[in-house]
Parts: sequence; structure tokens; C-alpha cells
Amino acid sequence: MPAILGQNQYGKSENRVVRIVRDGGIHRLKDLSVSISLSGDMAEVHHSGSNAHVLPTDTTKNTVYAFAKEYGIESAEQFGIHLARHFVTSQQHIQRARIRIEEYAWERIQVPMPGAGEATTFTEATEASGHSFVRSGQETRVCQITYDGARWQIISGLEDLTVMNSTNSEFWGYVKDRYTTLQEAYDRILATDVSARWRHGWEFDENPMPAWEDSYAQAKRYILQAFAETYSYSLQQTLYAMGSRVLEGMEGIDEIRFSLPNKHHFLVDLKPFDLTNDHEVYLAADRPFGLIEATVLRDGAAAEIPVDLTGG
Amino acid sequence: MPAILGQNQYGKSENRVVRIVRDGGIHRLKDLSVSISLSGDMAEVHHSGSNAHVLPTDTTKNTVYAFAKEYGIESAEQFGIHLARHFVTSQQHIQRARIRIEEYAWERIQVPMPGAGEATTFTEATEASGHSFVRSGQETRVCQITYDGARWQIISGLEDLTVMNSTNSEFWGYVKDRYTTLQEAYDRILATDVSARWRHGWEFDENPMPAWEDSYAQAKRYILQAFAETYSYSLQQTLYAMGSRVLEGMEGIDEIRFSLPNKHHFLVDLKPFDLTNDHEVYLAADRPFGLIEATVLRDGAAAEIPVDLTGG
Amino acid sequence: MPAILGQNQYGKSENRVVRIVRDGGIHRLKDLSVSISLSGDMAEVHHSGSNAHVLPTDTTKNTVYAFAKEYGIESAEQFGIHLARHFVTSQQHIQRARIRIEEYAWERIQVPMPGAGEATTFTEATEASGHSFVRSGQETRVCQITYDGARWQIISGLEDLTVMNSTNSEFWGYVKDRYTTLQEAYDRILATDVSARWRHGWEFDENPMPAWEDSYAQAKRYILQAFAETYSYSLQQTLYAMGSRVLEGMEGIDEIRFSLPNKHHFLVDLKPFDLTNDHEVYLAADRPFGLIEATVLRDGAAAEIPVDLTGG
Amino acid sequence: MPAILGQNQYGKSENRVVRIVRDGGIHRLKDLSVSISLSGDMAEVHHSGSNAHVLPTDTTKNTVYAFAKEYGIESAEQFGIHLARHFVTSQQHIQRARIRIEEYAWERIQVPMPGAGEATTFTEATEASGHSFVRSGQETRVCQITYDGARWQIISGLEDLTVMNSTNSEFWGYVKDRYTTLQEAYDRILATDVSARWRHGWEFDENPMPAWEDSYAQAKRYILQAFAETYSYSLQQTLYAMGSRVLEGMEGIDEIRFSLPNKHHFLVDLKPFDLTNDHEVYLAADRPFGLIEATVLRDGAAAEIPVDLTGG
Repeated sequence: MPAILGQNQYGKSENRVVRIVRDGGIHRLKDLSVSISLSGDMAEVHHSGSNAHVLPTDTTKNTVYAFAKEYGIESAEQFGIHLARHFVTSQQHIQRARIRIEEYAWERIQVPMPGAGEATTFTEATEASGHSFVRSGQETRVCQITYDGARWQIISGLEDLTVMNSTNSEFWGYVKDRYTTLQEAYDRILATDVSARWRHGWEFDENPMPAWEDSYAQAKRYILQAFAETYSYSLQQTLYAMGSRVLEGMEGIDEIRFSLPNKHHFLVDLKPFDLTNDHEVYLAADRPFGLIEATVLRDGAAAEIPVDLTGG
Repeated sequence: MPAILGQNQYGKSENRVVRIVRDGGIHRLKDLSVSISLSGDMAEVHHSGSNAHVLPTDTTKNTVYAFAKEYGIESAEQFGIHLARHFVTSQQHIQRARIRIEEYAWERIQVPMPGAGEATTFTEATEASGHSFVRSGQETRVCQITYDGARWQIISGLEDLTVMNSTNSEFWGYVKDRYTTLQEAYDRILATDVSARWRHGWEFDENPMPAWEDSYAQAKRYILQAFAETYSYSLQQTLYAMGSRVLEGMEGIDEIRFSLPNKHHFLVDLKPFDLTNDHEVYLAADRPFGLIEATVLRDGAAAEIPVDLTGG
Repeated sequence: MPAILGQNQYGKSENRVVRIVRDGGIHRLKDLSVSISLSGDMAEVHHSGSNAHVLPTDTTKNTVYAFAKEYGIESAEQFGIHLARHFVTSQQHIQRARIRIEEYAWERIQVPMPGAGEATTFTEATEASGHSFVRSGQETRVCQITYDGARWQIISGLEDLTVMNSTNSEFWGYVKDRYTTLQEAYDRILATDVSARWRHGWEFDENPMPAWEDSYAQAKRYILQAFAETYSYSLQQTLYAMGSRVLEGMEGIDEIRFSLPNKHHFLVDLKPFDLTNDHEVYLAADRPFGLIEATVLRDGAAAEIPVDLTGG
Repeated sequence: MPAILGQNQYGKSENRVVRIVRDGGIHRLKDLSVSISLSGDMAEVHHSGSNAHVLPTDTTKNTVYAFAKEYGIESAEQFGIHLARHFVTSQQHIQRARIRIEEYAWERIQVPMPGAGEATTFTEATEASGHSFVRSGQETRVCQITYDGARWQIISGLEDLTVMNSTNSEFWGYVKDRYTTLQEAYDRILATDVSARWRHGWEFDENPMPAWEDSYAQAKRYILQAFAETYSYSLQQTLYAMGSRVLEGMEGIDEIRFSLPNKHHFLVDLKPFDLTNDHEVYLAADRPFGLIEATVLRDGAAAEIPVDLTGG
């Protein structure tokens, strides 16, 4: 029999859970998609179909909803830690759990203050509703929690944070070969959908855990600010500036990886119409797109974020 | 020959144009996808393939970029009016133009004030960048401009404005037949992705044109506030409240249509796990979904928004 | 109160039902997504939220599954007819039902004949499996059934049938204005994703119903053949040829509408690399795309297919 | 400076190329999306933005189109080998190239034989058109070619091959914990979207290269047949049967990895409607879904396919 079983994992993907906490009339909510992957002593189910070692994926789904009640959802990372610990410690045949979570952000709807009448103009007094929310579509927050019974690996990140600099970007001085036709650019639009993952140094229960919500807000802010403040000669340079800003400002983060599509905005040639285009009119292209990917590491840190984890 | 040519139109869809205006270091931008449909004396191109009456769709694409330079993009509606007027008045064989536009919103990135150092905490002083933007994914603004050489029909709207009330929604007292198993609900989540289109009363060049940007902001605000403030016994009731709020508050709007998917959030049964679920843990479902659609009209106004225009 | 309720409808969308029929070891299956929209005496639920006239959308979902058992799914059209008749005739307050259905096609997997060993080469004997299927992703079949208690309107169609002619397409002789830069083409690729809807003449129960399965197969075949056989000077001409082929060949069909994106394949300029491109290398573009839409009618037939029904 | 540059790569993604070969009136076509990632001595562009080592991604795009002319596209794998070799051997600063390709399959449209008239029935004589094609949406063929100047790593595969067994699947005998509510099943639908990647043993130019087109067809056929012929007690068992079938039948393949979503089809409870459901009516669910992933290896082969390469 020549076929050997290699790496394998199983679980339930995209369990959509919304958790509401009511503090009088003020509600707070968390909105997650939770995906579970379990590994362990699973040769037999592949060879014979015997499920004697298999906790059903349906059970893992139930556990998500039960834990949302039992533990609440303080943060995506903390919720994933509860789940991963449970599967590894309670199931004899499971040695490793990986939890991936997407989080969708919501903002409170602004409503007129009591007695203010309807808010017909922006200057009238409004207040945040206690129970009415509008989804903020800016980026999707993500995390991945992996636990083998001893060590935690916590990777946080974001997807689809779309940013644009309308100037302060150049591209010139590159290699030219037989197939090069591109003209050098001294003032171009630089735009990308940031896909990022950063790995926290925290690994063991005996060490103090990061404040996950603050950590995420700070990392996102650094990424945005480094993008805005970098006068860029290449998207690689901007990527590295974003990564090093996070590592320098946040000592709890050891590694960060980006996948940055270069969302090309082509300056449209208006000369055929006797018009000049002084960096005013651009065509936003879809495909093909440049793709710049790199990891930035704290000196001495291991590179653990998989190459293909960003970008999807 | 039994086959008769009926309604027909042609054009170029999804022309992606970004227009930058530089006011010193402060840039403003508009980011649109423009789709053009032209109708007129087009029988021959269908019957024989003769293109003698056909302005190429490629030309209509070029016109979008040239007009972005010549007229700027004050608003999506105003830009569409320039385009529609051009095609109908300049082309002998074109009697009607319909322009559909999607607009993507961008916000300025907040950067540290000069001299403030890096913004390591939220309390440090920041200011809005002049040229760095982050895309606001909340909703997509849309409009449709139709012109036949005499009358304008302007429909504005939005897609994918996702809202949720975590309480103040009930559903009971409905018809029960042989196939009814649903339990009545006295406290449920109400969530939807608002798709809306509203038609402006403005129709003729001699009348004063609405202020399109303010009008959009006000309509969106009314929709959000009516959603938040309605204690709801049915999604139909909430729809009607949103529509009538817009019509009552904005005399320039004659008609509004909504397509509202009922994004079901099912209260999870935790009793098998010896847990109670006091409106805390919900499963967010994808399919199937309820779909509630209706037009709300100013008394005496014509119903012109097509039934299938919302919802896509 | 200035706000009047206009056209309105409600129901459950995208009920995914798979129906298996076992004939010994030979299974047949139908795989549908069924969307229901009901209209009638529904003012009160919009004004006050009273659900006294409202059959819950959850009930309409249950009805789909119950009818799949009670009636089977002979064809998407026939299944929609059962559903529409039920809602209109059994519910006092519902006067009109519209059922939209998508159907996904499956083919039988070919397996080695008994005693043939594994099929290591294509020449070994295989037979169609009785219970193993692979989904045929070519097009999605669709239909829309509307009933008001007296008259049926049955529209069949398809989405995403992607076709390409690698020659026999030209484009020249068009209008040229100030914004025209396009070069004339005497041998180009013509490619499109066919979106089509055709309306059957059958309207009343007392007349013999079409054979829905055969009718669909025949209409699809005519569309493909007319696309292949038309030497084309414009996509409009190809559209009309497809439509008239269906109307001429199928007397039970009165009207057909197409929405045809012109999926541009640009001949790549290889001269900068000292290469000639004799209609060999094309860039397949996404956006923008031309969009050609038209209805073709049997002489004397009414135009009932909505302009926006195709294309989505 | 604490930030160290780790793994990095750059290139142009999703270059859409269609290559036509005309053999008289008989055309053949290849339709690819080609994505290029290059790595090498790229520290400086990250640190300072100097592009002195950077071949522009635009040049890599041009190379795709030029090579489609110069070399033709015999197969996706062979085309990727030409590209990867070019970048590594012609660019001083590039040490590694990875080419990912998606291929879209097309079938010839059947048209009536000359003199046959229109094909009004299926029994009339037809023949395959020479230049008219319809896209076969079944699966997407993919491959990944990696070259470091010495060794080739060639991974072929497919995405979105959707298959279903309407019987011969059971699921019972699994672990039960506090959160388990699932009922055991003795006759269920088993359906999945196969995502697979297999690695060829071929690594060096001096060895004979596989016949890529035949190899792909054979691997796909084995996967389908093993799916159809396995009486399944778990999706893991079916996965292993598919993998071992490929490895046993194809000695040129050393490793195969699958990502198999369990597309749940729930037997609908019709008892509330006084109906029995004898494995006839199923609800096809979207989310959450089970996800079964594993690698199967030839004994002694290295595990090189990344865990996250399948499934996306």
C-alpha cells in the first residue's frame, strides 16, 4: 500500500454567531464567523471510515454557541482561546486545535436626542442609539488561534482595508529588459487593499495576555499612519514602513506579514480629445494587478506566519 | 419574418473613473463606476449588422474620462446629467440615454499633528491627511439618470447599508395554515441590508436642481433614524416608516422603493447543554431569507421606479 | 399623511431544495433554489405592523419542501406552477404569486463497467453511475412563474452561458465623433455571457401545457447554434439572430430578451517585442464591458418581459 | 532598527491571456489567468524604495503575452515552465520564480451538418464547430510552477469540482460529548466541492517531462471514480480513497492534498405536515460547513504541498 496519510485536519467552518450583552437599554454586540480545525490521532477514520476518534463537526458548531453563552465574547482572540483549549484538553484524540475567526464591526446609529425632534440637519443634537447598529464595512478583522496543549500561537490581522494616496508616490529607476514598455512615473496614485497578519509574542498561559481589543486598534492605526506618512518610491517600501512601524511601536508583536495588491490607477491619455490631464483623471483597473508580499520580523524572532495566510 | 425588435439599448458598463481635485495640499476625490445605455433608431444594426447609427461603446467610455476632466465630478447625479445630455443632444440617432452610477466613499486618514510624534495613543492630537484616504465600505451610493431630450428622471439610492436592531422587534398574530410551524416571537433581532431608490421630483431644466450631495446625506440619515426609532411588529412596518420619513422630510422626493432582505438571526436553543439563552446568542443565517419589497409614494405621484431596480 | 403604499410583495428567497427519486439503483435528482414573492391585501402590515393577513415567509419555505414530496419536481416550471396556484387559491389575502427558480444541472459520473477493472485509459468500458453525480457548471437554468388566479405568465431562461467565436466577427462603419479613438476591426473575437429570458404563449389551464424540459433544451440549442452560425458585424446582429431563431423554431414562445455583455478580447500589440500577432494572442478584459440588450417579439405579441429581468 | 525583512515576493497577478491556434478552419484555444511571483535580492527596494533590482510587474505581464506568441501554450504547466525559467535565468537579482495558472475549459458548439437544415431535434446530424465554443464551467484547472534555477516543483490541481452521492454514505459511531446532539445517519447524501493539488515527481530538466494534458485528465478521472465507487462512512475515508487511487494509478505523482467542504444536505422533517420523507427531500445548506483536509503521500515522498494551498 503506497499511500501514506500526511497532515490532516477537520472541523466546522464559518459558524456565524452574534452575541448580545444588555446593560439596561445599552446593548453591546459581537458578530463573528468562527472556523474550527482539529488534528490528532485520525489515521483510522481515513483508512476504514471508523469514527471512533471523531468528535463530529456538528458538535464543534454547538460548542461555539454554547461557549458564546458560557464565556461571552470579550474579543475574537479570547473566544478562540477558550475554544482551542477546550478541544485539546477535553478530547483524548485531539492534539491540536486551530481556530480562525472573522469579525464584522458595527457602529451605533445616531438618533435625535429626546425632545430634539427629527434630526433634519446635521447640527441638531443626536446621541448614539442603545440598540440600533449599522455595519461598518471598512475592513474585516481576523485572527487565528493555534494550541497544541502547551504553546499558544496567536495571529491577529485584517483584510480589505482599502487605502489610497493621491500623490507622494513615484516609480522609476527599475530594471529594463526586452519586454519592458512601462514609462517612469514621478507622481502617481498608490492604492491597495491591505491584507495583514501579525503574530503576538504571547505563548504561554503563565505570561500576561495582551489586551486584544486595544492591540488591534493600535496596529490598525499604525498601518494607516505609516501608509499616509510614507513618501513612496515603491509599494515594497510602503509595506516595510507599515511593518516596521507596528514592530517598533508594539513590543508584544514579533512578526507581521502583508499581501498588498497594487490597485493600479492609470492616468488617462486625454490628448486625443485636446485635453490635458494634470493628474486629475484616472482609470481604476481591476486585473491584472501587481502583488507585493513580505514578512517583517523583530530581530531574532522566528518566521511562523505562512506565506499563503495573507491575501485571501 | 415573425420576429419584431422590441425595447433595446446598448452602451459601456462599469467605467471606473477616479477624479482628483487638488486645492494646494488638500485633495478631494470622487470614485465612480459609470454605466451607459443608449437607445434610439437602432433597428438596422440588429437586422443587418450595419453600424451606421452606432456610436461605439468605446467612444462612450472615452466620453466618461473626457467629461471628468471638462466638467469635473461635482456629484454622481450632476455628472450623469452632463453625460446623458451629451449623448441625446449630440447624436442624431440616439433618443434616450440612461446613466447608472455607483459611488464609493472615502474618508481621510487621521495622522499625527506636526510635532506631535507618532500617535501611540488615541488621545494624542491628530489631523485629517490632505492626500491619504481609507475607503468607507459602509454602503454603496447609486443613481440612475434618464433623459429623452425633454424630461429628466433622476433616481438616487443606496445598496448594502446593513443595519440591526438588537431588540424592539416582535413577530406574531400572523396567518397559520397546514404548513406553518414558526413560533411567535416577542423579542427578536431585526436586521437587513437596505437597498433603496428614491425618485426626485425635479424633471425639467428650467426648475432649480436639488443639491445632490446634501440630499443624499439627508435621505440616508432619515432611513437610519427611522430604522432605529421604529418599534417593529413586521419588517413591512419598518420599511413603510423609513419611506414615509423620507417623503415627509424631503419635499423634493416623490417616490421611494425598498428591497429589504430579512437577515434572520435565530435564537439558538441551548437547553440541550443545560444553558438558558435569554436573547444573548444568535445564529446569523444566510439562506433562505425573507424578502420585503415595497414602493412608498407621495400622494398623487406616479410610480415610476421599476419593481426590479432595487435588490441588485 | 402624504405617503401612499405602492407596489409591494414579500416572501422567502433562495430556498435550496434537492429532490431525489430512486428507481431501484438508478437515482434522478433535481437541485433548485426557489424564491417566492406574494402580493395582495397587505396595506395594514405596512401601516400598523398587524400580521393578520400575512402568511409567514417561514411557512412559504415549508411549503416548498412539502410540495417537493407531495408533487415531486418534474420540472422547475411545473414545480413553480404548483406553488403559485397553492398560494393564490388557498390564501384569502393573496392575489398574486411570483415564483423564481434557479436550477443547477448534474451529470452522472462515468465509472468502470463491472469486471472492467479501474478505468486507467479512456478506451476502457465505462457506464453511467446510478447515484454519483458531478455538477455541470455550464449555465444556470432559470424560470419565473406568475399567477393572479386566472392567467399564467411563464418565463424561462438561462444565465451565464459563456460563448466565444474565435473568428467570423467584424466591427466597422460606425459613427465617429470627437471622442472616438477605436480602430475598425475586420477579424475579432466575439464572446459573451448569454443571459436570456423567453416567455411562453401558454397562459390558461384549459390549454395544453408545454413540455418544459424539452422546450428548454431546444431553446438553448437554438441559441448556441445561432451564435455559432452567424457571421457577425455587431453583437446586436448576433443577438437578433439568436432571438429570431428561437421564435421561428418554437411556436410556443412569443417573446425573448437578451442581455449580452461584450466580453472584450483585445489583440495584444507585440510590435514592441519585434513579434507579429496574427490574431493569435488576446488579452481577456473584465471592465468596462459593452452591454447589448434587446427584446425580440413574435409579430403581434405583447412585450411583457421587464427590461431589467435579464442581466442579473 | 529592530525590523528584519523576511520572506518576500512580488509580481503581476491574474494576467488573462487567450491563445488561438488556427489549423485551417479548425481553431484551438487556451484560456488562462497567469500570476507571477518573483523573489531574490530585494532588500533595498523595501528599505529605501530603490528599484535598481526590480523588474517591473508590468514587464512580467508583457512577457506573458510575448511568450504566448513565441512558445504557444501547449499546456498550462509547460507555459509556466517557460516563464519561470526565463525570469530566473535572465534576471541577475531574481533567484526564484513561482507561476500560478488557472485554466478555463471550452467545448466546441455542435452545429448542424452541412445540408442538414437546422437541428430541430436531437437526432439530427450535427458536427463540432471549428471556431465556436461554449465554456465548460465544471471545474477550474490550476497549476503552480516553482523554479530556483536548479529544481522544478510542479503542482497541478483543480478547484470547484462539485460532486454528490445520493446514497452509499453513512455517519455513525462517533465520539459524543456534552455538546453532541447530532443523530446518527445510515443513508445520507455526501456532496463536496473538490479542491485538490497533486505534486509531480518530475524535478530536473534531464528527466523526461510528464505529458501534462493526459496526466490532468487521468487524475481528474481517478478522483471522480474513487468518489463514485467508495461506500463511505466518513468524508475522510472518501478523501483518502481519492488520494490513494491517484497515487496507485499514476507513478509520476508523489503527493496529493485535498480540501473537501462537507456540503450538508439535511433530510427535511416533513412529519409536521403528515408526510414521510424516505430520503427524498433535502435542504442544501451553505454555512456552516464541515471541512475535511488531508495530504496523501507516496511512501518515502516529502510533504511539500502547503497546508493552505488547497481550499481557496
